[in-house]
Amino acid sequence: MPTIAEGGPFTRIVEFDIQPARQLALIDAIVGEVERWVRHCPGFVSSIFHASHDGKRVINYAQWRDQDALEVFTHDPRGEALSAAIRAVGPDSGSQATHYRVIRAIEAPGGAAQ
Amino acid sequence: MPTIAEGGPFTRIVEFDIQPARQLALIDAIVGEVERWVRHCPGFVSSIFHASHDGKRVINYAQWRDQDALEVFTHDPRGEALSAAIRAVGPDSGSQATHYRVIRAIEAPGGAAQ
Repeated sequence: MPTIAEGGPFTRIVEFDIQPARQLALIDAIVGEVERWVRHCPGFVSSIFHASHDGKRVINYAQWRDQDALEVFTHDPRGEALSAAIRAVGPDSGSQATHYRVIRAIEAPGGAAQ
Repeated sequence: MPTIAEGGPFTRIVEFDIQPARQLALIDAIVGEVERWVRHCPGFVSSIFHASHDGKRVINYAQWRDQDALEVFTHDPRGEALSAAIRAVGPDSGSQATHYRVIRAIEAPGGAAQ
């Protein structure tokens, strides 16, 4: 199960705007490529797919060991298959990827309230 | 350490656009309120603060037990202190909160590559 920690891995959050009817198809398309090759890339840690309750957004919360590992991934020639899979589903406005570091992780007193 | 799991808690992602010079001050302001009272709210699971490498964005990745717990929080009168703390730092365009469910969590073969 993926974890999030202060000082943890390099975090890349990719956001997609999408028609609600295609939201889960978009996730399926990307998951297929991640399962096929992305998860085997050196330094890949995790990729977590979130569907908004309103149907209009998808977020891929991805963790990489470091920025160098991400760079190698982004230059992998198989990335074209990933881009094609995304285009085939057709998010409204492409995607926006932003890179983050985790500054603080606060939990409920006594641990998670689940 | 917070974890992310398929079928996990209710996920609320809040995004802020901010001047880079105020990025960490914005996180400090919100963290102060989360430490003071938000983390003690029933059903609070975790709140993880991310600073973009380019300095221009902050993401609060928050987990709640369920939507009902989040609703109680959003109507808590102490929310005014939280809003005031955020306004005092002045993000460029307020904030955007979106609610998600976790559809898939994919890890590297053999576990995390950390």
